Amino acid sequence: MTDADLEGRLKSAIRRIPDFPTKGIVFRDITTLWKDNALMRSAVEALYEHFKDSKPHVILGIEARGFVFGALLAQRFGVGFVPARKLGKLPFDKVTERYQLEYRTDGLELHRDAIDKGDRVLIVDDLMATAGTALAAAKMVETLGGVIVGLAVIVELSFLHGREKLKSFDVFSLVAYNSEAE
Amino acid sequence: MTDADLEGRLKSAIRRIPDFPTKGIVFRDITTLWKDNALMRSAVEALYEHFKDSKPHVILGIEARGFVFGALLAQRFGVGFVPARKLGKLPFDKVTERYQLEYRTDGLELHRDAIDKGDRVLIVDDLMATAGTALAAAKMVETLGGVIVGLAVIVELSFLHGREKLKSFDVFSLVAYNSEAE
Repeated sequence: MTDADLEGRLKSAIRRIPDFPTKGIVFRDITTLWKDNALMRSAVEALYEHFKDSKPHVILGIEARGFVFGALLAQRFGVGFVPARKLGKLPFDKVTERYQLEYRTDGLELHRDAIDKGDRVLIVDDLMATAGTALAAAKMVETLGGVIVGLAVIVELSFLHGREKLKSFDVFSLVAYNSEAE
Repeated sequence: MTDADLEGRLKSAIRRIPDFPTKGIVFRDITTLWKDNALMRSAVEALYEHFKDSKPHVILGIEARGFVFGALLAQRFGVGFVPARKLGKLPFDKVTERYQLEYRTDGLELHRDAIDKGDRVLIVDDLMATAGTALAAAKMVETLGGVIVGLAVIVELSFLHGREKLKSFDVFSLVAYNSEAE
């Protein structure tokens, strides 16, 4: 299967929901992809192939949808999985990073002992829009002395130019949408 | 490895956090287990072995911590993964089930097309306490005509007697704690 074939199959499996959560936004629903076991395997394999030479020591998944591909990639690489969680969820000593959303700030947390100094970390999420959450995750990893090998996402909303915020890492997506209309 | 060996190794890997989220509660932190790849594989395999003869068609993971083992079990069984999510997160036509927490009600949602009539469904979560969330997930599956083959959890707080609410299914845990003090 070529990359273009995989992107086409993934686009067919991802559900397009106009006006969710608010009018004018098209939500990309990947729960329909999660239900397709064969396609999930192909997606995990494509992400693994892209990042295998970067030899991550740990996979960081962003709550909540990043936990699914994060856990699967951790298993594929044979390494540990660590979660970046929403504020107030993690129980142990942690770092916090806040980021701006349209009308409010939100934040992510990471246990301090999730990343050892020098760990090579692959960050995983389902979707990259403006990259605010990915950037927050990256800052926390760097605070703990980790080395970011890249960001793996399934869906990239390329018209929001999130990757311009993340120029120092390898950002890899399996599916890109060039407009809300697509 | 015997089951007792696995339980002991899991107990060693799960972090005990007294007084989180509130005084008197001991939080069982499984993020330290998630970071241990070899032990994760053993845990997934033990859950798979227990449920393999029940032949699930779909794995349902409960947000957010149930997504990790849910996704891994879906891959192990070679079937689809579907999420039960907190209120307001799922974008498509869905069912909702509310449940009582100590001082408030909370709820879970499930897409109507996540489960087909007659689907054999294995519900997965990280921890069973009073079983309120598992029961809510089970009710939604039954509303959609699914057949519940069981509930798989890593940790069971057996002193809260959650399994008494779920007598009609096979409830299987890898680790049981008999008191907060343990």
